[in-house]
Amino acid sequence: MVKCSFAHMDCSVARALDSIGEWWTMLILRDLMVFGGHRRFEQLRDGLGISRNILTERLRGLVDSGIVIKVPIAEGARRQEYRLTEKGWDLMPIMVALSQWGDKWRPDPQNADLRFQDQRNHETIPPVAVMSTDGRLLTAADIEIVPLKEEMQRFLTS
Amino acid sequence: MVKCSFAHMDCSVARALDSIGEWWTMLILRDLMVFGGHRRFEQLRDGLGISRNILTERLRGLVDSGIVIKVPIAEGARRQEYRLTEKGWDLMPIMVALSQWGDKWRPDPQNADLRFQDQRNHETIPPVAVMSTDGRLLTAADIEIVPLKEEMQRFLTS
Repeated sequence: MVKCSFAHMDCSVARALDSIGEWWTMLILRDLMVFGGHRRFEQLRDGLGISRNILTERLRGLVDSGIVIKVPIAEGARRQEYRLTEKGWDLMPIMVALSQWGDKWRPDPQNADLRFQDQRNHETIPPVAVMSTDGRLLTAADIEIVPLKEEMQRFLTS
Repeated sequence: MVKCSFAHMDCSVARALDSIGEWWTMLILRDLMVFGGHRRFEQLRDGLGISRNILTERLRGLVDSGIVIKVPIAEGARRQEYRLTEKGWDLMPIMVALSQWGDKWRPDPQNADLRFQDQRNHETIPPVAVMSTDGRLLTAADIEIVPLKEEMQRFLTS
């Protein structure tokens, strides 16, 4: 099955999905985040249990998208590791939200889930939510979706 | 390429991805959310420009996962539409976060993005973020990840 690109679609959701690549990639990013943002090839492969070829291809996509960089594990070292960039770390709220959704709607019967905790007080992190600028919790009914073009049009003609 | 299932993996991220299905599915969910949570088959097909067969298959997956239900468009009507369930609406923060990430890191040169606004004051919705129980913005460095099993172990032996 040919993976089609969403890059042409007029929507930032489509472009975000296109940059991330595909589902497996989210699990690579999850492993990077869980281990502090950096991981060697073999560690990722062993953790995920996927083939060398597939992991190589996915990591290349992530490097091309600027989500991950490949750098020496220490100054002057020959061994290299993959590190999340700022763009990659910016996916963290999406990862936490996916994990919370999975916990809520499809809990593991063996209770082997990960829990995200606040380092300061060890409390479970509340569900990632859409908030207003003044801190109200927003539901779908509170949100309006405006194409930027239309908004610009209004601005130009007002 | 055979799509492998993540359902067996010990992680709520993997189970969330497995429930959602694959990338195209996020675009179906996006269209449902943008149009108030319900949409007819032909409307989804025309909006997304995908084949009847693929859309049928994706929608069946979403119905099986309980993310979407198929219901008459009105009481007693023969025509049916697809509607987001509570489980489906619960993916909204992920959708908004994906859209914001796309806007930030891969803006559309034609500026045709969607903007999410607060209905009350028409302000742009701030980035979806991970917050602490007392309202602090959390970065990756503030978060610890604990396997629930381990936590339960500590509880039982303390």
